[in-house]
Amino acid sequence: MRDFKSDKGQMMIGGVKATDIAAKYGTPVYVTDEDALRGNFRRIDKAFQKNMPTRIHYACKANSNMSLLRILEQEGSCIDAVSVYEAKLCLKAGFSPDRILYTGVMVSDVEMRQVVDLGIPINVDSINQMRRLAVMDNGHPISFRVNPGVGAGHHQHVVTGAKTTKFGVPKEQILDTYQEALSLGFKPFGIHAHIGAGVQETAPFLQVTQVLVDIANDIRDHLGLALETIDIGGGIGIPYHLEDNHMDVDALSSEVSNYIRNNCYVRKLAIEPGRYLVADTTVLLTTVGDIKEHPEKTFAGVDAGFNTLIRPAFYGSYHHVAVANKFGARATFNYDVVGPICETGDFIARDRMLPMIELGDLIAVYDAGAYGFTMASNYNSRPLPAEVLVKDGQMNLIREAQTLDDLTAHQKIPGRLMV
Amino acid sequence: MRDFKSDKGQMMIGGVKATDIAAKYGTPVYVTDEDALRGNFRRIDKAFQKNMPTRIHYACKANSNMSLLRILEQEGSCIDAVSVYEAKLCLKAGFSPDRILYTGVMVSDVEMRQVVDLGIPINVDSINQMRRLAVMDNGHPISFRVNPGVGAGHHQHVVTGAKTTKFGVPKEQILDTYQEALSLGFKPFGIHAHIGAGVQETAPFLQVTQVLVDIANDIRDHLGLALETIDIGGGIGIPYHLEDNHMDVDALSSEVSNYIRNNCYVRKLAIEPGRYLVADTTVLLTTVGDIKEHPEKTFAGVDAGFNTLIRPAFYGSYHHVAVANKFGARATFNYDVVGPICETGDFIARDRMLPMIELGDLIAVYDAGAYGFTMASNYNSRPLPAEVLVKDGQMNLIREAQTLDDLTAHQKIPGRLMV
Repeated sequence: MRDFKSDKGQMMIGGVKATDIAAKYGTPVYVTDEDALRGNFRRIDKAFQKNMPTRIHYACKANSNMSLLRILEQEGSCIDAVSVYEAKLCLKAGFSPDRILYTGVMVSDVEMRQVVDLGIPINVDSINQMRRLAVMDNGHPISFRVNPGVGAGHHQHVVTGAKTTKFGVPKEQILDTYQEALSLGFKPFGIHAHIGAGVQETAPFLQVTQVLVDIANDIRDHLGLALETIDIGGGIGIPYHLEDNHMDVDALSSEVSNYIRNNCYVRKLAIEPGRYLVADTTVLLTTVGDIKEHPEKTFAGVDAGFNTLIRPAFYGSYHHVAVANKFGARATFNYDVVGPICETGDFIARDRMLPMIELGDLIAVYDAGAYGFTMASNYNSRPLPAEVLVKDGQMNLIREAQTLDDLTAHQKIPGRLMV
Repeated sequence: MRDFKSDKGQMMIGGVKATDIAAKYGTPVYVTDEDALRGNFRRIDKAFQKNMPTRIHYACKANSNMSLLRILEQEGSCIDAVSVYEAKLCLKAGFSPDRILYTGVMVSDVEMRQVVDLGIPINVDSINQMRRLAVMDNGHPISFRVNPGVGAGHHQHVVTGAKTTKFGVPKEQILDTYQEALSLGFKPFGIHAHIGAGVQETAPFLQVTQVLVDIANDIRDHLGLALETIDIGGGIGIPYHLEDNHMDVDALSSEVSNYIRNNCYVRKLAIEPGRYLVADTTVLLTTVGDIKEHPEKTFAGVDAGFNTLIRPAFYGSYHHVAVANKFGARATFNYDVVGPICETGDFIARDRMLPMIELGDLIAVYDAGAYGFTMASNYNSRPLPAEVLVKDGQMNLIREAQTLDDLTAHQKIPGRLMV
């Protein structure tokens, strides 16, 4: 969670008053601070490069806005793409194919054919996928995603490394898989695993590194293939709560690099941060439209619901909230901040002490840059919100809000129904 | 759950082979059977009209496709709209304003102003909202949503009637609220409550009817206002499992109508079915792209994930699935049917006995007409799917699938990022 400056009780984002952004572009609106994004990339890049050459593959499922992709392209990032559509967006944003690694799950031939034709390296997720790829192009650059049997994360939904999940080649089958890959003509360049999301300690990453090092050594010893890269995936958490610690990326880098250096021949690392790079760069601004004092609690109703930000409703996630136009004022009342969606599960923040809220107040929802806009929907027929980029006191609209016409644009009504 | 016909092992929907639909329009694709929708409306309409004049307000948050709205308009349905956008879509679809009832939650002045200007009756959700509406137009037709303190439903997220939820005016405050409404110049026409979603028995509806009858009687006795309508809301469940019972709408209608007739002066009823009308009219067709045999389970990977149908991941909902091109074949293997989204929580159906699945097989996900497309997202940058209407062996594309261009259409990249 970042600290934001206050200017006479007004929350400032990238040198701009939050209320000015809301006044100009309406709400709900996602607001990203360009310098914060550049800072996040530079911090983790520096921490890793000093210990071992490392490719930072931004997991763009967290936020695939084209301007954010441009910023990360400028910074020298690489990309972790989980769909061919993400890969195409990144190509459009200026990433060359070799800077993208495609890691799909349950990949169809239709999708894989496109990835192959685009010349994007594939991190193969299943034995079946490898065999189908061999038919298309057995010279395509590949690595394998192994299911390490090691999982961690902030919610059961995102623990991807556990044994019973759908991801990767099971550890028990991985050596045979590399052998088959070699016999099919492939020359795999690496090994990859991903343990989950929202992990705050270094230990699970070290555990997965150990699994990957063992596999890399086995591959060299038994198959005579020396891998170039060990990819420990993503999953680095961020401090959504005030009291949470920041992940110490320097410690993470040195622990992982040292382990590899001392136990393996591989000298290139890859990591796939998504949330770490973008979550705290962005706040969601939303306006209070109604206030309800029920006998048992007080509700502040805002214009962002789980159509806009689904994490609280979907994962039970905590997002810090503040009243942007009463920034730093004493928190004296308890509120549930809830959205306009017609479901009880539609809330933004529960049981929060905040300054007294009045109609028209502007609520800032922190850490909304990861899995915010990318998971938004048109539920209740509400249009998708705008996105704004701020830097040095300037604002740029980087995505216009949808209008009602967007909801009907692709629809056709058969003639017989027009009577 | 509807029975579908089989033609030599091929699932038939509205007289069309499921595989023909998939071949023509691609997958994933939502397929709606027009006659099934008309049949559902006529069944519940008939059941209610025979006991008491009843307005059937279709809760269009369940599915706001324009063609489905047109069909229901032709059938004589009214509308329950929860956002001004839904209201506008319904106006576009040919519903006159007086056939729409707007029931927002946490309604802002900006949104309410539009509803007022459109001449759409408002089911007021809070005291605050009433006072703000009085300033705009104290002659506007209104009813009130009461929070009855009676909740029920298939998931905690949708139990809207319980005391601690954000919806409606608390029962304890409702009489004072009608009194204030009268003193502000309003002449409320009704009283409304909504208990939740997915309710399979008549008892909770009878309970809420009793609460509403007591309030209606109190209003006449203490305030001298005779209400025209009692609106018991929606929430009628459907049998998602093979072994579930259909709600007996004849019994529901007669129990509710009899109770009102014997205990109250009101002689008009309103109900707000959403799921009941549309859920079983629609199947989601999705293609198997990869199959994984892990030591502990077998995954059939399809091209629809929680971006397409979020109910299993969001609510833990059960949807029956069948292999459309092996329809009626013996179920001999156990599968998890999972999507292409990069999260463990991305599944369509778990632990199902199905015929042996091969690559390219077509999976039909039943009862996908309610809260399917309307809750879909672009997560993982996947475009929204197509929708097809079938009737008498004919197919009509009623919504084109999105393309990649739709994902970038509203985006603008600041000049400084283009270097």
